[in-house]
Amino acid sequence: MATPTAAILIIGNEILSGRTQDMNVQFIAQHLSTLGINLKEVRIIPDDEQVIIDTVNSLSNQYETVFTTGGIGATHDDITAASIAKAFGRELVQDKRALEILTDYYGDKLNNARKRMALIPEGAQLITNPLSAAPGFKIKNVFCMAGIPPVMQKMFELIIPQLPKGEKFYSKSLHCSILENNLADALADIQNRFPTVDIGSYPKYNPTGEYSLNLVLRGINEELIHTVSQEIIDLIRQQGEEAIVE
Amino acid sequence: MATPTAAILIIGNEILSGRTQDMNVQFIAQHLSTLGINLKEVRIIPDDEQVIIDTVNSLSNQYETVFTTGGIGATHDDITAASIAKAFGRELVQDKRALEILTDYYGDKLNNARKRMALIPEGAQLITNPLSAAPGFKIKNVFCMAGIPPVMQKMFELIIPQLPKGEKFYSKSLHCSILENNLADALADIQNRFPTVDIGSYPKYNPTGEYSLNLVLRGINEELIHTVSQEIIDLIRQQGEEAIVE
Repeated sequence: MATPTAAILIIGNEILSGRTQDMNVQFIAQHLSTLGINLKEVRIIPDDEQVIIDTVNSLSNQYETVFTTGGIGATHDDITAASIAKAFGRELVQDKRALEILTDYYGDKLNNARKRMALIPEGAQLITNPLSAAPGFKIKNVFCMAGIPPVMQKMFELIIPQLPKGEKFYSKSLHCSILENNLADALADIQNRFPTVDIGSYPKYNPTGEYSLNLVLRGINEELIHTVSQEIIDLIRQQGEEAIVE
Repeated sequence: MATPTAAILIIGNEILSGRTQDMNVQFIAQHLSTLGINLKEVRIIPDDEQVIIDTVNSLSNQYETVFTTGGIGATHDDITAASIAKAFGRELVQDKRALEILTDYYGDKLNNARKRMALIPEGAQLITNPLSAAPGFKIKNVFCMAGIPPVMQKMFELIIPQLPKGEKFYSKSLHCSILENNLADALADIQNRFPTVDIGSYPKYNPTGEYSLNLVLRGINEELIHTVSQEIIDLIRQQGEEAIVE
């Protein structure tokens, strides 16, 4: 079973200026991991038409599924729908279903700015927005969602049934306070013997300067992860500590 | 005065698997903004030699400065130094200065794994690590830093004097609770009249579902930002609210 691949494209000047901490990558990444979809890369780019066109085309060709967030609101800086229409050579049209959703939601407060949120690339499928009505859309293999985290999360949950499924990744975390370079040679040996289990070693300093080490095992064979986990637990024990297993 | 450009490259499976929330992009982005350096894109990629080589080459050619984080520790999954050496056709050598730093820090605990942290692309300049000794390095226009946020932050602060400086970006935030699509037409008009001030409109829902709107003005002309800010404050007042200015 081939593992489906994906990329995330975060569109927004506010992330690149440092004003906003991105909160969308981790949410999507965690879900993809559970679904067995291999997230191959993330890009963060500005609200710039040509950059959006080029990046969407490149990612759409390279990966099975692409997720974009940001730039689908009603203001002048929301250019994602228009740019993605251009990327795929489609017209940007007033979508009847989207207009209906917005009319239902806004009633007689549906002004021209709000109507612009019904402009969708021709032939796209809508993604329901249960929080604030204005829909996202899917065109080709690209799912375009809102940038606001709670809205994006609701949209993402609704598209899960449409996503390709791979074999679930299992993971296990082992925590200790041994300096990682005291384990490095032995870990490299274990990694060599079990190439299908991905062993990540992540040292951490908490704000008070205290050190800890997280070792993360990841792969599609749960039994093998258990075997590797036991070897590493033993290794940590040889260094005089008991691993905390998560 | 031309604005210097930059890209950030986050190297690490732990971000793509969703295990770890990235905390490095915003820190670097905020500093670049203050320095007047235009952050044009961010990429997050796995610990994969060929992907690192290709991405570093591409970003290094496109932008004046590139910052990488992650993959410079002592374990088997730390392949940034070796990959970047290959990207630039350099040998990976045991750097005498780096070995001296590590010897001073670890004393007789300098094992082979730790010695590997002295493997640096030939001809690279070292970046001091005041927290945990193992240095980062600069090669061509690429600054390679640790992935652990407190270590990366200390390294970044030390390289600031070497970075190209542009004209400082000024920014001003205005907060209100008006729905953004009630301001959209008027904002688009202001944006058209002041094209050198970047006006971003960012609606937000807090966890209890309460709505607020942040309007962010950004540009190199402080006076112009003040002018635009006044226009938007008046606009918000016309809708019956007082803007909170930050």
